[in-house]
Amino acid sequence: MRMLIKNIKGLVSTETTTRAIAVCGKEMDNLAVVDNAFLIVEDGVFKAFGAMSEMPLGEFETTIDADGRFVLPSFCDSHTHIVFKGSREIEYIDKIKGLSYEQIAKRGGGILNSADRLREATEEELYLEARKRIEEMMDYGTGAVEIKSGYGLSTQSELKMLRVIRRLKADCAVAIKATFLGAHAVPREYIGRQDAYVDLIIQEMLPAIAEENLADYVDVFCDEGFFTPEQTDRILFAAMGYGIVPKIHANELDNSGGVEVGVKYNALSVDHLEFIGASQIEALMASQTMPTILPGAAFFLNMRLSPARDMIAAGLPVAMASDFNPGSSPSGNMQLILSMACVNYRLTPFEAINATTLNTAYAMGISNTHGSIAVGKVANFYITTKIPTIEYLPYYYGSNKVWRAFVNGVEHIKTSDNGNEQ
Amino acid sequence: MRMLIKNIKGLVSTETTTRAIAVCGKEMDNLAVVDNAFLIVEDGVFKAFGAMSEMPLGEFETTIDADGRFVLPSFCDSHTHIVFKGSREIEYIDKIKGLSYEQIAKRGGGILNSADRLREATEEELYLEARKRIEEMMDYGTGAVEIKSGYGLSTQSELKMLRVIRRLKADCAVAIKATFLGAHAVPREYIGRQDAYVDLIIQEMLPAIAEENLADYVDVFCDEGFFTPEQTDRILFAAMGYGIVPKIHANELDNSGGVEVGVKYNALSVDHLEFIGASQIEALMASQTMPTILPGAAFFLNMRLSPARDMIAAGLPVAMASDFNPGSSPSGNMQLILSMACVNYRLTPFEAINATTLNTAYAMGISNTHGSIAVGKVANFYITTKIPTIEYLPYYYGSNKVWRAFVNGVEHIKTSDNGNEQ
Repeated sequence: MRMLIKNIKGLVSTETTTRAIAVCGKEMDNLAVVDNAFLIVEDGVFKAFGAMSEMPLGEFETTIDADGRFVLPSFCDSHTHIVFKGSREIEYIDKIKGLSYEQIAKRGGGILNSADRLREATEEELYLEARKRIEEMMDYGTGAVEIKSGYGLSTQSELKMLRVIRRLKADCAVAIKATFLGAHAVPREYIGRQDAYVDLIIQEMLPAIAEENLADYVDVFCDEGFFTPEQTDRILFAAMGYGIVPKIHANELDNSGGVEVGVKYNALSVDHLEFIGASQIEALMASQTMPTILPGAAFFLNMRLSPARDMIAAGLPVAMASDFNPGSSPSGNMQLILSMACVNYRLTPFEAINATTLNTAYAMGISNTHGSIAVGKVANFYITTKIPTIEYLPYYYGSNKVWRAFVNGVEHIKTSDNGNEQ
Repeated sequence: MRMLIKNIKGLVSTETTTRAIAVCGKEMDNLAVVDNAFLIVEDGVFKAFGAMSEMPLGEFETTIDADGRFVLPSFCDSHTHIVFKGSREIEYIDKIKGLSYEQIAKRGGGILNSADRLREATEEELYLEARKRIEEMMDYGTGAVEIKSGYGLSTQSELKMLRVIRRLKADCAVAIKATFLGAHAVPREYIGRQDAYVDLIIQEMLPAIAEENLADYVDVFCDEGFFTPEQTDRILFAAMGYGIVPKIHANELDNSGGVEVGVKYNALSVDHLEFIGASQIEALMASQTMPTILPGAAFFLNMRLSPARDMIAAGLPVAMASDFNPGSSPSGNMQLILSMACVNYRLTPFEAINATTLNTAYAMGISNTHGSIAVGKVANFYITTKIPTIEYLPYYYGSNKVWRAFVNGVEHIKTSDNGNEQ
């Protein structure tokens, strides 16, 4: 199966095939644009690209005339919680009225609210809801999704979530990675006995998950009011025994040691980072860990903003993901994350593209195969609508600028006007 | 032409036909929801609505089964600058790099940049670009649009813009109001001679515009670095002579007297209001002027937020519009404004719906005929996708939740994936 896309006004690429991003180099602006370009996809993989003047002759099953549109790599969304049952808009009105995360949690809202609903839901219900979310994310240009468990909070329900993710992996075109986040919150029955819940995670959940090979990564909400760095350390150490690499929720609510414990265990990423100072930046500089910012959650919760420019100035790369979840970021629209990256965090458009594609691919462990248009990588990309420049993408915020999206070289049929239905 | 929509999960309405909003009453939460409803549209007007159990028998050319979806009044976007030539994303990178509004203006960017391009553009080009923008705004549920001139800054070019708006009025299904904003910026040839430009507006532009009856309203950018309250006063006084009602850009950059001069001339609305204190709120309380906030511009420029809750607490209503323009708010997506109203300004979902429909209808002088679902009003409305609650609309931000949109009772054909092309 060979496909040619011609008359591309500009194609955003990286030069080499399988280059893993050098985490501690200045890698925020490593994109190249081929003007007036062609692109050839063969058997789901990028086969060749270059200037139209050098377009090879050949037979193609499909030829698409981009007619002056742009081609970009699909977004990689390296931090989501999209397996959940039901939305939480009513609790969100409590937030509008000024209740804090902690207060809402005390009123039975927050993660425990989602956990209650999830325990009652069937695997089939969870699968169908999550699948619709993925379809809609694809409408907006996403080609890879990390999905966390963490609304189960019991061995049975965590396994249920991870099996749903396994089924999504098998059925969905997008690349999916599964992260076990048993330590998302302390379930009601363990309140006041947090260490006993950590024991349950280590002694019961992790072995069962490893047995079925259900998790690519392990995550802990290491923050004020959730899990301590010591508890996080215990969980990560145990996970390491099964070869499961960590990705950590860190420094969202306080400078509470999450970055340091993540770096200690060579976490693939540390995510959130609203509360981060010079010493955390220094720790990250000496690591292979990708700092990941979640602009949607900061927007939705009116949080202080993670100092992205300070990190970049220090020489760190930055990744940005959606954090799609029903409580703090009910959106999987990565184009909006791209806009927020520029508007709120003052990334340049190319830094923002990098942050939402190659750097998030790194943060979900797939940068060798995904996250950029490079010969040999999986052909996940989209053709834009007729926009005048690449910079227009984050600038013209709030509308879908994906004309046609492709995953594994196959066109995604947009769910369009009812993709949002549930 | 009679149309029936049945099995509506909830229909958001106001009770009476032509009630103008009482500006100084607590009118932020005056919406009613009819559960399990029907809606009848006849000849482009809302004919009847109520509970399904009371649905009348009758013949209908069209019957739509909403199948548990919601019906809401279309958004009224009471503040836009959508007649412009070309986008300004490159200048926007200057903004990301931290240059101020004033610095960008000095570098030849800002409004003068748009003015240069506009002067070169033909009426036809401007019309076609603006028309595409309106079509895309309709995709997202907008049914009425106020459009300002102000990128002309010469008699000839201002007239050109207003004639484009006149043509849009004639051709587009949405309700359109035209506002003359000659005093948007001081054109290059008048820098240092600002009063002479005000003279030009009063002596040459206003008479020509009144002669052709091209403007419903007059606007002045009354703010620090733009026009003084005294200059604004002169322009409004002159416009009053032609029966042209003011709508003012006020208090965006400083507490610079815009609100007071607007109230003095009984402006329909004063817009922006980032810098507003107790005495401006008091002045508005004693007026018929609608305070209007522009969340998109505040987002895009990282501005301080207008104190919406203080105004509501004082007893004022609040309207919220897109400010769609190429410099400070390149988006006409009113669903996103609805979300920002809740997330950033802490309006409840129903306050936010009111702020973007009936209150913006008031702010563009059409609340007797538009802005709510009431018997006798123009049938501008949309059916949502299958969302669980009305509160879900602002909550689930970033995706289009309009399933089918109707303007004058006629279905809008979505531009969908290429609506954004230009």
